[in-house]
Amino acid sequence: MNPAVKPLAGMRQLYPDAMAVEEGIAAVIRRVALSYGFEEYDGPVIEPLELFLAKSGSELVMEQSYRFTDRGGREVVLRPEMTPTLARMIAGAPDTPMPARWMSFPVCFRYERPQRGRVREFRQFNCDILGSDSLAADAEVIAVLDGIMRGLGAPPGSYSIRYSSRRLASEVLTSLGLESVMHQQALAIIDRKSKLPADEWRAWASERLGGAAEAVERFSCCSSLDDGWLAERAAPGGELERLREFGGLLGAAGVASASFDAGIARGLDYYTGIVFELLDTGGQNRRAICGGGRYDNLVGIFGGKPVPGVGFGLGMLTLRLFLETLGLRVSGRSGRPDVFMAVFSPAELPWAVEAAEAIRSRGLSVLASLECGKLSKQFREASRRGASFTAVAGPEEASERSITLKDMSGGGQMRLPLEKALEFLETRLGGSL
Amino acid sequence: MNPAVKPLAGMRQLYPDAMAVEEGIAAVIRRVALSYGFEEYDGPVIEPLELFLAKSGSELVMEQSYRFTDRGGREVVLRPEMTPTLARMIAGAPDTPMPARWMSFPVCFRYERPQRGRVREFRQFNCDILGSDSLAADAEVIAVLDGIMRGLGAPPGSYSIRYSSRRLASEVLTSLGLESVMHQQALAIIDRKSKLPADEWRAWASERLGGAAEAVERFSCCSSLDDGWLAERAAPGGELERLREFGGLLGAAGVASASFDAGIARGLDYYTGIVFELLDTGGQNRRAICGGGRYDNLVGIFGGKPVPGVGFGLGMLTLRLFLETLGLRVSGRSGRPDVFMAVFSPAELPWAVEAAEAIRSRGLSVLASLECGKLSKQFREASRRGASFTAVAGPEEASERSITLKDMSGGGQMRLPLEKALEFLETRLGGSL
Repeated sequence: MNPAVKPLAGMRQLYPDAMAVEEGIAAVIRRVALSYGFEEYDGPVIEPLELFLAKSGSELVMEQSYRFTDRGGREVVLRPEMTPTLARMIAGAPDTPMPARWMSFPVCFRYERPQRGRVREFRQFNCDILGSDSLAADAEVIAVLDGIMRGLGAPPGSYSIRYSSRRLASEVLTSLGLESVMHQQALAIIDRKSKLPADEWRAWASERLGGAAEAVERFSCCSSLDDGWLAERAAPGGELERLREFGGLLGAAGVASASFDAGIARGLDYYTGIVFELLDTGGQNRRAICGGGRYDNLVGIFGGKPVPGVGFGLGMLTLRLFLETLGLRVSGRSGRPDVFMAVFSPAELPWAVEAAEAIRSRGLSVLASLECGKLSKQFREASRRGASFTAVAGPEEASERSITLKDMSGGGQMRLPLEKALEFLETRLGGSL
Repeated sequence: MNPAVKPLAGMRQLYPDAMAVEEGIAAVIRRVALSYGFEEYDGPVIEPLELFLAKSGSELVMEQSYRFTDRGGREVVLRPEMTPTLARMIAGAPDTPMPARWMSFPVCFRYERPQRGRVREFRQFNCDILGSDSLAADAEVIAVLDGIMRGLGAPPGSYSIRYSSRRLASEVLTSLGLESVMHQQALAIIDRKSKLPADEWRAWASERLGGAAEAVERFSCCSSLDDGWLAERAAPGGELERLREFGGLLGAAGVASASFDAGIARGLDYYTGIVFELLDTGGQNRRAICGGGRYDNLVGIFGGKPVPGVGFGLGMLTLRLFLETLGLRVSGRSGRPDVFMAVFSPAELPWAVEAAEAIRSRGLSVLASLECGKLSKQFREASRRGASFTAVAGPEEASERSITLKDMSGGGQMRLPLEKALEFLETRLGGSL
């Protein structure tokens, strides 16, 4: 009967100070996304297992997901990611005006070993454009991402957005003699390159890809669209051309942080075109802060017409840790009340309550003392909480419907009829809420 | 491989229109709670089973919860309510300045048969004051609740807050000859009275309470603190006196919607004092929109010093349905962009992207056309999306770095150099974000 004071390992538990920072970050994200016309949606935490089996990739669902059988005998999973839910929602609402720009802040679940920046319950920002196969859509979601980073104050060079393309990879892998059934596996191998020691990775890649391993490694090292090796192996007039056009759109959007990197593969099976990651260039946060890409065949699996899509998921915790390593503190709400309401004795409590309500009705925040201890103690409390003014309700104030206001920044104090006090506070503090 | 387009029954799935309403409601709630100095926190969705076994009540945990064994062999539960998590967090942070005013918007889970206003996954607003046993704290959380309803536009008389006290119930049940081990059961019986047909309830109550059933029913019908029957059975100078004082504080706080009702018992085991519900007086929404009360022994079970608490959970869905039956539509974000950016042909796409970014940098929202179809079609789209202006990027605009602006409210159109256009839009539309 004395459960541990700690939550389960890797779970999300935010005390008010941490929550204020996260909400401050979320407010910046929302403002940027709204400036592009994104609308917010939400979906279920519990989903049928099949939803993720279809397209997310087997490692995620079979090895890392929270799965169980519910009381009705259904095989369910706590969503490890949001995109399949989004795709189902879009498929279920065929009259949605397209292109649709949708955003959400889902909490997701993966059973992994907790470590810095990797937890089992995490909140993401998800941002997707559905119903357009234009490169302008791919460029726009990356512009949103870059706008968020700039909005949060991340300086140029502190992060980089790296993009590649699954179509380009397919063109090159085909020219290397790999059959298309092997492409997914080759991508998975490229995806793990940065996560394993070089020797270990090479041995593993050779085992899987045989003679093609070396060329696959060479491909994954391409970081310029003008790389001659790459140009020889890509399809003429194919994806390399489109990526050049894409780079031009990113430039026009003022995105200076993005560059081509064939080593970006992403772990999810459903991507079909551009894929990208946002990385900490400082190296203190090794996991990608954000990953995304184009998934043109996902909505179609729910029946109805196919709807192309492109978007990303941005981890709120990895983002917060990244900003901390930069020494950037996004200010959440201050938590400081405009007024602390002190009460002389229980007899004045009703008057204190009434006066506090009147002050709140002017758009100000009032922290009411709930105990009627010594006034000196209440003043100390007001000071500790950072109140701009302390209002005192004593016997004389109660009988004449006034309050005594003390300026906590060192000004004097004065007793005013309530109406006068309200005018004074409104003038001095504005509507803070 | 074609999963159903529907989510599992009773799950939370909000398309942008519904989400905008819910976020509009949440914004009002936050504003009211902030005016009282509440701070936001968040906790885990997945919790150890023991956390709820201890105090929530066995029906909730054993019959209605989503329980499973995780990959590490732990018996876990998807939280059916937030208060035990809150209590553990407070117990785990003994240096938290008291009283602490904490709020949260948790999504919770209960496996019940879905029906109107009752779902399996639901979002609540939770609002609690910890570290004060003053009646002023109980009155304050009810003032917050009433302030929320008024802030949402619910007219007087459309809802009522009913409160009782577990201490008063104990005084009366003791005077009726019921031993204290029976009190919890008697409260559970009172709690079910409004949920069963009268005859069925009476038969069930008699079976459990024997000869005391009739008196328990009589008690549950008391709706005035001046009820003579009640005064004879309550302890002299006891809880009845405190409830009178409590009524005075509610009156001082301007809460006109609250009244005493001994039929309010609440289903959770951990309540120790005042309990309350918010009900739809119109009767179209039979479930309580909100329930809460005082729980002075909950934090202490985690070890450390005991911390008294009082608070409530407000169901966001039941609240939304209630507002709908009143015809009240809380406006969320409009979703209308300030500017729709139309593009003449692919050659002008980079200029359109650059100009759109420049407009956004002035705090305005721009919905960019991602396709370069006929301009007449793009103007129709701009109109359908409710844009205030349409900006056109054509060949001449691109070459001279200008845009053509069309006032969608029927004004004319003009071509302006980008800088002039930005000034014009800023003056006309202000910073909307």
